[in-house]
Amino acid sequence: MRILLLLLLLNFSVFSQQSDSAFIRKIYNVALSEGHAYENLRSLCKDIGARLSGSAEAEMAVEWSKKLFESYGFDQVYLQPVMVPYWKRGTTEAGWIRTSDKLLHKVNLLALGGSIATDGTLEADVVEFKHLDELKKATRKQVENKIVFLNQPMNEQDIVTFKAYGGCYAIRGYGAVEASKLGAKGVIIRSIGMPVDGHPHTGMMNYVDSVKKIPAAAISTSDAEKLSALLKTQKAQFVMKLNCQDYGMVPSYNVIAELKGTVFPNRIITVGGHLDSWDTGEGAHDDGAGVMHSLEALRILKQLNYKPKHTLRVVFFMNEENGNQGGENYARWVKDKGEEHIAAIESDRGGFAPRGFHCDGPEDKLTFLKNLEPAMRPYELHIFEKGYGGVDISPLKKHFPGIPLFGFVPDSQRYFDFHHAPSDVFENVNKRELELGCAAIASLMYFIDQQF
Amino acid sequence: MRILLLLLLLNFSVFSQQSDSAFIRKIYNVALSEGHAYENLRSLCKDIGARLSGSAEAEMAVEWSKKLFESYGFDQVYLQPVMVPYWKRGTTEAGWIRTSDKLLHKVNLLALGGSIATDGTLEADVVEFKHLDELKKATRKQVENKIVFLNQPMNEQDIVTFKAYGGCYAIRGYGAVEASKLGAKGVIIRSIGMPVDGHPHTGMMNYVDSVKKIPAAAISTSDAEKLSALLKTQKAQFVMKLNCQDYGMVPSYNVIAELKGTVFPNRIITVGGHLDSWDTGEGAHDDGAGVMHSLEALRILKQLNYKPKHTLRVVFFMNEENGNQGGENYARWVKDKGEEHIAAIESDRGGFAPRGFHCDGPEDKLTFLKNLEPAMRPYELHIFEKGYGGVDISPLKKHFPGIPLFGFVPDSQRYFDFHHAPSDVFENVNKRELELGCAAIASLMYFIDQQF
Repeated sequence: MRILLLLLLLNFSVFSQQSDSAFIRKIYNVALSEGHAYENLRSLCKDIGARLSGSAEAEMAVEWSKKLFESYGFDQVYLQPVMVPYWKRGTTEAGWIRTSDKLLHKVNLLALGGSIATDGTLEADVVEFKHLDELKKATRKQVENKIVFLNQPMNEQDIVTFKAYGGCYAIRGYGAVEASKLGAKGVIIRSIGMPVDGHPHTGMMNYVDSVKKIPAAAISTSDAEKLSALLKTQKAQFVMKLNCQDYGMVPSYNVIAELKGTVFPNRIITVGGHLDSWDTGEGAHDDGAGVMHSLEALRILKQLNYKPKHTLRVVFFMNEENGNQGGENYARWVKDKGEEHIAAIESDRGGFAPRGFHCDGPEDKLTFLKNLEPAMRPYELHIFEKGYGGVDISPLKKHFPGIPLFGFVPDSQRYFDFHHAPSDVFENVNKRELELGCAAIASLMYFIDQQF
Repeated sequence: MRILLLLLLLNFSVFSQQSDSAFIRKIYNVALSEGHAYENLRSLCKDIGARLSGSAEAEMAVEWSKKLFESYGFDQVYLQPVMVPYWKRGTTEAGWIRTSDKLLHKVNLLALGGSIATDGTLEADVVEFKHLDELKKATRKQVENKIVFLNQPMNEQDIVTFKAYGGCYAIRGYGAVEASKLGAKGVIIRSIGMPVDGHPHTGMMNYVDSVKKIPAAAISTSDAEKLSALLKTQKAQFVMKLNCQDYGMVPSYNVIAELKGTVFPNRIITVGGHLDSWDTGEGAHDDGAGVMHSLEALRILKQLNYKPKHTLRVVFFMNEENGNQGGENYARWVKDKGEEHIAAIESDRGGFAPRGFHCDGPEDKLTFLKNLEPAMRPYELHIFEKGYGGVDISPLKKHFPGIPLFGFVPDSQRYFDFHHAPSDVFENVNKRELELGCAAIASLMYFIDQQF
C-alpha cells in the first residue's frame, strides 16, 4: 500500500511537473507572440507621458489605466482613492557655472523633487564635497553662504547597479539638510546616474522642520566632472533659478483589477508597479515597464483561461516616487477589509532582460522560490535569492507579518542610464526584454497560486 | 603525516580559492574603472567604420589594430597574411514594390553578401514562400521568371535568439540557389532580424556552380510584412537594382599579439573575435565588441602584471563574415608551426551583459567550466554549458582534436535588432555591458592558464 501510494505520488509529481512546464511554455508563447505589453507601454509613454503624482498627466494615467483594465474583462476593476503630494517643477529652471574670468557655462540641471524654488536667481561660490560625511565634517566657515556641490559618483565597481545607487542615495536625500545646517544657500548634487553624460537625474529629497529649507538640484554627471575639474584650479560661482512649488495634498487613485479566486476568493496575491513617474522623460522603465509587466501577467493568465485558486490582483500604485501614499494606503485598506493577503510581487527595476526574483519573507517561502529554479532555467532566470520586494508592497509587512514579498530582478546594467532622467523614454525599452519580464512574473504568479 | 598533508592541501586549496577570488575582483575593477574597451570600440567604429574583407576600411582596421596592440607593449605583435574574398556593394542599390494600381512603394533593401548585380533594373511578379522547404516543393510554373520572396520570420518564441537565427538561416544561405533551380529571376528575403522595423539585415549567401546565379537581397522586416499583406489581395511586382560585384581574392591579415608563457611558452591559449564586419552600420556588436573583449582581456591581465604560465594570444581574425579565411588559415598555420594549442575562446555574440560561456570540447573541460560557477556567480554569470565555441576558432578542432573551444555567451535578446544592419553602431553598445564582457573573458583566460 505504501509503495502504491508512493508510486501514485511520484506519478502525480511527475505529471504535475510536466503540466507546470507546459503551462509556463504557454505563458512565454503568449507573451512573445501575442503580447500587449509593448504597445500598452508605447501608449502610456506617448499618449500620457510623464506622470508625477498630482499632475494632470497622473490623472489621465488613472483614467487610461482603468479603461485598459476594463477592456480586458477582468472580474473586477476599481479605483482606490489616495491623497498624494503635488509638487510641480517650474517652467524656468536653469543653471550656470561662472568661472573666475566671469564667463558663464550653461549646465543641464533638474530641481530635486520636493525642493523649494530659488528667490529669483541664486548665485554663490561653490564648495565641493565628495561624500555626505565629508560635508558633515566641514566647518560653518567652509560652507556658509555658499552653494554646496556634492560630487559623489556611483561606484562603477558594484556589479549590481542598485548597490551603487544605495551608496549614493544620501547625497540626494539628505544633502540639503546637512548643507543648510552649516549655512549654505543651496545645494547641487552630481546626478545619481551611471554614465558620464548630459542627462540630469532628478529624484526625491527631504527637508526637516528644524532646519531652514534651501533649494536643491541635480546637475548632469558630465557637468559635475567639468565643475569639479574647474574647482581644482580656480574659484567658481554657481547660478541657478528654480521655480518649483509644493501644492500640498490632492486626491488621486491606485488602479486595481482582479481575477477572482475559485477556491479561496478572500486570499489575495497582489502584483504591481507604480503608475506615477518623475516629470521628466516618459517614465518608461521607471515604472511604465513595471505596471505593464504586472497587467500583462494577469492578462496572459486570463487569455490562457487560467482559473486561479486565490484572487489575483494587479495594482497600479500611485505616488511611489515622492511619498508612497499608494502603497501605504493599499496595505491599510486591505487589512481593514479583512482580506487575507498571502503574497505580493513588485516590478520596479525596469524592463530589462529578466534574471530572477528576490524574496523578502520567511525561510519556507525563500525555499519555495529557490525550488522554481529548474522550471525557470530554460528561460534564463538564475537569481532566486533573499532580497528586497519593493517600495509599493513593503507596507504590507506591517499589517501581514510573515507575508512573502517578491521583487522582480531584471538585469541592472542599464537602469541608471535612464533612472529619473529625460532619457527614460519608450525608445529605450526593448520589446523582447519587456515581454520576457511579463512572462517571468506570470510564471511566478502561477506557481504561488498553485503552491501556496 | 597524512593528516598534516591533508591539512596542508586544504589550506592551499582555501588559499588558492581566496587568491583566485581576489584576482577576479581585480580584473573586474580594472575593466569597470580603468577600462579601454569602450573608447577603443568608439575609435574602431568612428575612425574606421564598417570593414568588409578586402575593403579599404578593412585594410585601415588592420593598421589601426596593429598600432593599438603595439601601444600596449605586449611581448609580440605581428600580422598573419591571409587571402580573402573581396565583394563590394554597388553605389546604387534600390527596391520598390509596384502594386496593381501601378504605384511604386520604396523599400529598404540590401544586397546579400556575394550576390551578383542585376542587369540594369530587374522587375518581375513576386511569389511569396514562408519557408525554404515550401519553395523546394513549388512547381516551375509557380516560380519561373518571377522574383521569389522568402518571408520566414524569426521564431520569437525561442528564448535564445540564436536558435531563431539558426531556424531562418537557410532562406538567406540557400534561397537563391533553390529559387534559380525553378527559373526565378531573383530572390528577396525577409531580413533575419527580430523586430519589425525598417532596417534591412544583410549577410552571406551562396551560389553553386551548377545553378544559374540570380541576384539576391534582403528587405526590411516591416517592408516584408507590407509586401506580404499586399499579396494577400493582389498581384504585385518587385523592382530592384543591385550594383554589387565580386573582385576575387585579395591579400589581408589576421592581427596578433601575445603575452609569452613563463612556464610553457609553446602552449597557446587563443582569445579572439573577428575584425571584419559587414559593410553597413559600424560592426559595433558584430564583432567590434568581440575584438575589444579579446584585446581588453589580455590588456587587463598585463596591467595587473599577471605572468601567464602559457602563452596568451589575442587574434583579430579577418573574414569571418564571408569566407572564414582568417580562422582557417590561423588553425593551419599554428599546426604548421608545431605549436601546442591548448584552448581557444571566441567572442562573437555582441557586447551585451554576460551570462556565461559555452564549451565545445571533452567532458573534463566541460567539468572545468562548470566548476567556475561559484567563483563567477557574484558577477552574474550562470551559463556554463556544452555549446558552440565560434566560427573563427572552430577550424582549430581539425588540427588539434580534443582542444576545448569556449564561446562567450552574453544576453542574446537584442543581438538580432542590430545584426548585419545599419543599426549596428557604437551608440547601441552599452559601456558597462561591454566592460563586464571583457572581465568575464579575462577571468576565463586566468582560470584556463592556472588550471590547464
